[in-house]
Amino acid sequence: MTDRPNTPLLDQINTPADMKRLSDAQLSQVADELRAETISAVSVTGGHLGAGLGVVELTVALHAVFDTPRDKVIWDVGHQCYPHKILTGRRDRIRTLRQKGGLSGFTKRAESPYDPFGAAHSSTSISAALGFSVARDLGGAPPEGLGDAIAVIGDGAMSAGMAFEALNNAGHLKRRLIVILNDNEMSIAPPVGALSSYLSRLYAGAPFQEFKSAAKGAVSLLPPPFQEGARRAKDMLKHLTVGGTMFEELGFSYLGPIDGHDMDQLLPVLRTVKERATGPILIHAITRKGKGYAPAEDRADKGHATAKFDVVTGAQKKAPSNAPSYTRVFADALLAEAAADDRIAAVTAAMPDGTGLNLFAERYPSRCFDVGIAEQHGVTFAAGLAAGGLKPFCAMYSTFLQRGYDQVVHDVAIQRLPVRFAIDRAGLVGADGPTHAGAFDIAFLANLPGFVVMAAADEAELTHMVATAAAYDDGPSAFRFPRGEGVGVEMPERGVPLEIGKGRMIRQGKGVAILSFGARLSEVEKAAESLAARGITPTVADARFAKPLDRDLILQLAADHEALITVEEGAIGGFGSHVAQLLADEGVFDRGLKYRSMVFPDIFIDQAGPADMYAVAGMNAEDIEAKVLDVLGVERLGAARG
Amino acid sequence: MTDRPNTPLLDQINTPADMKRLSDAQLSQVADELRAETISAVSVTGGHLGAGLGVVELTVALHAVFDTPRDKVIWDVGHQCYPHKILTGRRDRIRTLRQKGGLSGFTKRAESPYDPFGAAHSSTSISAALGFSVARDLGGAPPEGLGDAIAVIGDGAMSAGMAFEALNNAGHLKRRLIVILNDNEMSIAPPVGALSSYLSRLYAGAPFQEFKSAAKGAVSLLPPPFQEGARRAKDMLKHLTVGGTMFEELGFSYLGPIDGHDMDQLLPVLRTVKERATGPILIHAITRKGKGYAPAEDRADKGHATAKFDVVTGAQKKAPSNAPSYTRVFADALLAEAAADDRIAAVTAAMPDGTGLNLFAERYPSRCFDVGIAEQHGVTFAAGLAAGGLKPFCAMYSTFLQRGYDQVVHDVAIQRLPVRFAIDRAGLVGADGPTHAGAFDIAFLANLPGFVVMAAADEAELTHMVATAAAYDDGPSAFRFPRGEGVGVEMPERGVPLEIGKGRMIRQGKGVAILSFGARLSEVEKAAESLAARGITPTVADARFAKPLDRDLILQLAADHEALITVEEGAIGGFGSHVAQLLADEGVFDRGLKYRSMVFPDIFIDQAGPADMYAVAGMNAEDIEAKVLDVLGVERLGAARG
Repeated sequence: MTDRPNTPLLDQINTPADMKRLSDAQLSQVADELRAETISAVSVTGGHLGAGLGVVELTVALHAVFDTPRDKVIWDVGHQCYPHKILTGRRDRIRTLRQKGGLSGFTKRAESPYDPFGAAHSSTSISAALGFSVARDLGGAPPEGLGDAIAVIGDGAMSAGMAFEALNNAGHLKRRLIVILNDNEMSIAPPVGALSSYLSRLYAGAPFQEFKSAAKGAVSLLPPPFQEGARRAKDMLKHLTVGGTMFEELGFSYLGPIDGHDMDQLLPVLRTVKERATGPILIHAITRKGKGYAPAEDRADKGHATAKFDVVTGAQKKAPSNAPSYTRVFADALLAEAAADDRIAAVTAAMPDGTGLNLFAERYPSRCFDVGIAEQHGVTFAAGLAAGGLKPFCAMYSTFLQRGYDQVVHDVAIQRLPVRFAIDRAGLVGADGPTHAGAFDIAFLANLPGFVVMAAADEAELTHMVATAAAYDDGPSAFRFPRGEGVGVEMPERGVPLEIGKGRMIRQGKGVAILSFGARLSEVEKAAESLAARGITPTVADARFAKPLDRDLILQLAADHEALITVEEGAIGGFGSHVAQLLADEGVFDRGLKYRSMVFPDIFIDQAGPADMYAVAGMNAEDIEAKVLDVLGVERLGAARG
Repeated sequence: MTDRPNTPLLDQINTPADMKRLSDAQLSQVADELRAETISAVSVTGGHLGAGLGVVELTVALHAVFDTPRDKVIWDVGHQCYPHKILTGRRDRIRTLRQKGGLSGFTKRAESPYDPFGAAHSSTSISAALGFSVARDLGGAPPEGLGDAIAVIGDGAMSAGMAFEALNNAGHLKRRLIVILNDNEMSIAPPVGALSSYLSRLYAGAPFQEFKSAAKGAVSLLPPPFQEGARRAKDMLKHLTVGGTMFEELGFSYLGPIDGHDMDQLLPVLRTVKERATGPILIHAITRKGKGYAPAEDRADKGHATAKFDVVTGAQKKAPSNAPSYTRVFADALLAEAAADDRIAAVTAAMPDGTGLNLFAERYPSRCFDVGIAEQHGVTFAAGLAAGGLKPFCAMYSTFLQRGYDQVVHDVAIQRLPVRFAIDRAGLVGADGPTHAGAFDIAFLANLPGFVVMAAADEAELTHMVATAAAYDDGPSAFRFPRGEGVGVEMPERGVPLEIGKGRMIRQGKGVAILSFGARLSEVEKAAESLAARGITPTVADARFAKPLDRDLILQLAADHEALITVEEGAIGGFGSHVAQLLADEGVFDRGLKYRSMVFPDIFIDQAGPADMYAVAGMNAEDIEAKVLDVLGVERLGAARG
């Protein structure tokens, strides 16, 4: 506790209401203290540092000017919300961020009334805010009613189609709605779309010092008396922009750009907007990700997500690992395939680093495509590449692939185009919590006709599956793999294509067979070893494919064993459901089989360490062991679980 | 055959190559003949008439100027493709459109090399075309190579986020790519977004006669010699627009607006673009849906989709029905609920007529929201309404809800917000074929924690489920119902909320139990009656809920019968998978149970009448009967199926 920053003003703020009595100068000091506190907290917890530092002043100004929580401030994506959490009654828990039992790393309705709409995926804030605006006008939430709805959205998030849909609808409905474009030229990766270039042009001609004087001019226009203040402030600021804006074409009043770190601009502009706005208005604020903390500002990704670190040096405290990350293994394997086949191309949706495609982009820049936060487009673009004769790998996190689901069905599966989906972050992911879990992809891909669906049991298997996908050209394929490090198996020189629809036997036993699909295999093996001490020797097999199923393997396991248990890192409807359908169709259940399917429980699991999350899911080695004992009717001696 | 139009020039065209020798005047005549042939064909088959009539001239001009199929013309949505099919070797089959074994009502890769990318859902064309452009530049499809990629997209489709994502990416990549904005101010419903108003402003100041003279001017600029022709034509036409355009801000060259029915404009503009384009270019063509056929032009929806009709009078030949459509029943039930609760609101994504919400909009205009072709935004907007205290019903077709899947997971389910999903067109839908089938929603909703998932067995049940959803406020809910007419059951005065998670017994029998989820119940009952003649008296139950399951009912059925068969109109991973999981977890399979789950087969089923499609799926009464006999091991006498 000795390294806590000195924050005398911040210490007096329990809720935003405590800021109402502060002068503008004091609010600026609050911002400075809030920045120090944010850096200090994240140094302990790790997390998204840069995004929060970029909106410290905006956070203070919004809560000072608007009446939260009656007014609804909706932070897009939510990873910039740490300063917001500190100001809204959660400072005492801020050093529990992203930890088991602690604060979520994103906004979360269940956590605070100051989080009116949770987030974690990008570009939802304008839609949600428009919903609140309409609900307000229709008398929702009596008796206290609803106030203003304010969406704070980054330039990267604004480039997603969903944000455009929301602007298009809001401009049409013409209701009072406030959108703050937090333009830091940096969402996760460097910006890539045409919109980004456009936004840059909006302020290219006007350096910050001019903004500042313009905003000072705006101050003099403020009440009392109000009169034409808002209009004149707007006109004045608009002269700094490059003509009319796209946002105005879509029905928004456009105000900006302003310096998002200058309280002397933020406060008067927000006050003017609060007093005067009648329809949808967009405030264009220029900010700097990582602002005010040199180690973050200097990093290429501006401290997007960071491990715990030393506040003074910025050095990260990350535990060393013996095994490469699955992401890195995928990237290396794809490079190897691309070296042998120049038809291989790669598509990412604003996650070049997260997916490992940054390495592909370095080596093969002409064959790597970062489409921006645009999964819908990305999937269909990949389908177009495949229709044009290339071999596209579409690398997305499981949870974000949900954004392109219709395109997977309509453009890829129905047309049977050989797009390869490299699905990272499959299963539970740890600190990012339930919004980032990859829980549903097995179910929503394996029921699509013609799809090949694989899951890697370890990092060597992943290498083989990349090779399999590269070689398989008859239709769409997908392979999923978890977040984090591999299990440390020996790696092959080069991946070898697997036989489609064939699993592998891991260990031959008797009585009970455990059929694993994906990276729980190591837990299954641990369970098998522990069971051996009791004289129970399960057969263990790795299915490799959820589709097509290895019918021979599964029916043989069913025939040779009293019990069959499937294990997968996903929700119901996936691998186990396909196995059950096969067993039912083949009449295996008619004669009796102790069949169990271990899938995620029917809850969204809060953030914790991955092992803790899998404990909640009941899918660690001890849970698998318990399931075996339970299905065999063996009494467990000293079992910890009931 | 006597009522076929006289089409002497069209008769000589087997493929677009046959148009290369025609003069511009002859091409105009081809267009006139093509229009007559299109009207004649659709009068026989029914289908999307208005969209095709709006692009007759554009179709002729594109195939005359570009080298299809090497150049790729990608029709967005694809329902305007009938003239294109007539010109591209499919005229002999054009009167089989949308029929069993006939031509698809959309573009389809498997049908013709002139359909480089199939469609049916909107707004995919620019993404696909960009994929082709990149594949061309990277040497895809050797040895012949790829030519130009041309996306033809309507103004409604352009408003979808996916199209914006594609423009944003294309403007960034700067590759040669041609987008034709087919602006008819009418996608399916009247246009609703701010983009639509913006597009109108682009040509509001310039009547068609001016466009015409401008285009004639462009002709004089054409080769030989080319020189600065393209640039001057562009500059000249641009003067007719209202300043710079949003498309230019996104990196596209903008050309237009031009009269999309005037061959004297279309041909020179397309020739200029073909010769000169270096980067992405957008041609803004103004067209009229239903153009040239008064009965279509006069209809409110401009002949969007039509039954068979009389060519002279335009009168539709639609078989009378005894039962109301499910869509109408939903609409009436929602009106009844809304009359009793002013917190009920409704959201549609550009389908007010198709979902029946047009009736809601008439009665409660302030509570009805058509967000445009924007399912992502629509779902999250509804989540915002729910968070704001309203009771939103989000009415979408099953297949289009796929577009908002991530929003269903991330914004609705994780936050447990009480958004009600009214899922129309669940199951197989007939003439619209596999792209419109509602096959996956049970699976992708029922595995979301906290969701209530219902399916209506008949139109009375639908009324009760609307009431159930209105009353249930603890989290998200969904109810699905099929396309078409109900089964003619007696209708209740008003829906009565069902007990959550409780099914109902339909008939008590013995030996085998059939548990139906959804509207196959009438087929199940037919099967039960037919079986009774053999002395087999199945128990029949209606599950009503896929989630939460009626555990007591299911376990009782399993305990009391030798066999249990589930039936649902959906793909694997849904209701039957949840039932199997319950039976497995409860150890029912340990003791043996003849369990079968009837789900869609693992294929995309081509268009046909719904009964024919269900025959292919193996889910009609005779298939259910055969399944019962098979599972009971009863020899079928004279059975038609093996």
